[in-house]
Amino acid sequence: MSLQQTSITIVGIGLMGGSLVQSLRGHVGRLACVDNDPSVLELVRPLVDEVASDLSTAAGGTDLLVLATPVRSIVRLVRDLPSYFPDGCMVLDLGSTKGEIGQMMAALPPAFQAIGGHPMCGKETSGFQAAVPDLYQGQTFILCRNSRTTPELERLALELIDVVGAQPLYLDPDTHDAFVAATSHVPYLTAAALMRSVSMLADGRVWQASASGFRDSSRLSGSDPKMMLDILMTNSGPILAQLSAYRSQLAQLETLLQAGDEAELLDWLERVYAQYHAYRDAIG
Amino acid sequence: MSLQQTSITIVGIGLMGGSLVQSLRGHVGRLACVDNDPSVLELVRPLVDEVASDLSTAAGGTDLLVLATPVRSIVRLVRDLPSYFPDGCMVLDLGSTKGEIGQMMAALPPAFQAIGGHPMCGKETSGFQAAVPDLYQGQTFILCRNSRTTPELERLALELIDVVGAQPLYLDPDTHDAFVAATSHVPYLTAAALMRSVSMLADGRVWQASASGFRDSSRLSGSDPKMMLDILMTNSGPILAQLSAYRSQLAQLETLLQAGDEAELLDWLERVYAQYHAYRDAIG
Repeated sequence: MSLQQTSITIVGIGLMGGSLVQSLRGHVGRLACVDNDPSVLELVRPLVDEVASDLSTAAGGTDLLVLATPVRSIVRLVRDLPSYFPDGCMVLDLGSTKGEIGQMMAALPPAFQAIGGHPMCGKETSGFQAAVPDLYQGQTFILCRNSRTTPELERLALELIDVVGAQPLYLDPDTHDAFVAATSHVPYLTAAALMRSVSMLADGRVWQASASGFRDSSRLSGSDPKMMLDILMTNSGPILAQLSAYRSQLAQLETLLQAGDEAELLDWLERVYAQYHAYRDAIG
Repeated sequence: MSLQQTSITIVGIGLMGGSLVQSLRGHVGRLACVDNDPSVLELVRPLVDEVASDLSTAAGGTDLLVLATPVRSIVRLVRDLPSYFPDGCMVLDLGSTKGEIGQMMAALPPAFQAIGGHPMCGKETSGFQAAVPDLYQGQTFILCRNSRTTPELERLALELIDVVGAQPLYLDPDTHDAFVAATSHVPYLTAAALMRSVSMLADGRVWQASASGFRDSSRLSGSDPKMMLDILMTNSGPILAQLSAYRSQLAQLETLLQAGDEAELLDWLERVYAQYHAYRDAIG
């Protein structure tokens, strides 16, 4: 089955789901959208073949179900899929953590084909209003296989990734969760702690005295709290492990600073400088 | 004395000094540049009236000296000013920390007029090659008075700030140093610890799996190590104090995450979300 012949239902029309709608239009057989916000359904209605406030209404005729809600809502949806699709279907999710979702997918009946996905694109804004057709363009789209993953679904997922302009990267769920703990969830926590600690100065002039470095350092603290809560609660193990690694690096810096150990401190900063530039070279 | 009648010598033609040259051209009586890098002097020569590798060569006829070298070099230059200018002159510095420099300025002979400055603009790139005429445009330019500050010098500094398109903000040196510790120096340390802790995963795929959130969170870790060393060594007191406040916020988050205390965690994240948006509203 090619994408052009596939009937796709997307559940959760926020930034990710809404951007997917915009980039998949015209490339798929049929497009349906499910969201519990009526105002979002009105906005997306002109772009798709069907809208519904409940998955049970839109389930019929769906070949590929794309789950684009917050993580724990995805976990519940995957658990309940057999009641919506007695004959099974293909499922791809876009959740930010992959361990729990992968376990739920593996527990689906054999009539289901399922694969985990995580497009590495985001904005500090969220919701359908922030959706854009090129959100996925040039970004990495992580895929996590599980025991319900089939070659047919993989081919379809790779075609979808190609159509939206992203590049696939296969990772096992544990590696995925460790990587995003390190590059996304711990950075969120450090931005949040930074924002709180500066706000505690309780002096409005501090914002005037701040520059672009603070704007970038604090940006993730403006992420949607409910979305982040879901992420933190479903990935606390890898996050706590990485947070511990982070704290020990920060403690080294603090010790060098307290000691005024200039030579060691410079050596440390030069290593970080080299690591930053190796990272920038790697992402191009 | 107006800026148009003022002979200005800028010492240190990097990002800040070089951008100042570009934005002051045509608005001052005479412009001279001092830098110890001959290749920089060749690049800046066509833009100014005089270039020199040493301040002693360029000192004659200078009304206003602008010191735009790293902080500890500024401290040494201010200490040695009486040997370059036996009859005194006006001095403005652009150093990133203001405590030590302010003390050195206050100790100058009465023939000197001096004021501390800190334009809140930066880039992760440095050096004259990165200089642009609009670097100061729309940015806050902090001024710190000391016992050698005169109304005449203040008027001239405010005119210079106006010409480069910045907005003045008066702070006392201690408040300045506490603010930049909070919004710039601690964020540098957290970005550095973040970069080191992710690099320790030693798996190139982690960079592919990273998104724009990590790019922004880690950006400050690419700052020039020698410049940052100067900043850390001259502002370690305020930095260590603010780092302690930061660590205690991070520890709260870690405790809530370990306990899986969902309600408290959400409350915490919602407060941060509100603080972030209050900050963004404040900076416009």
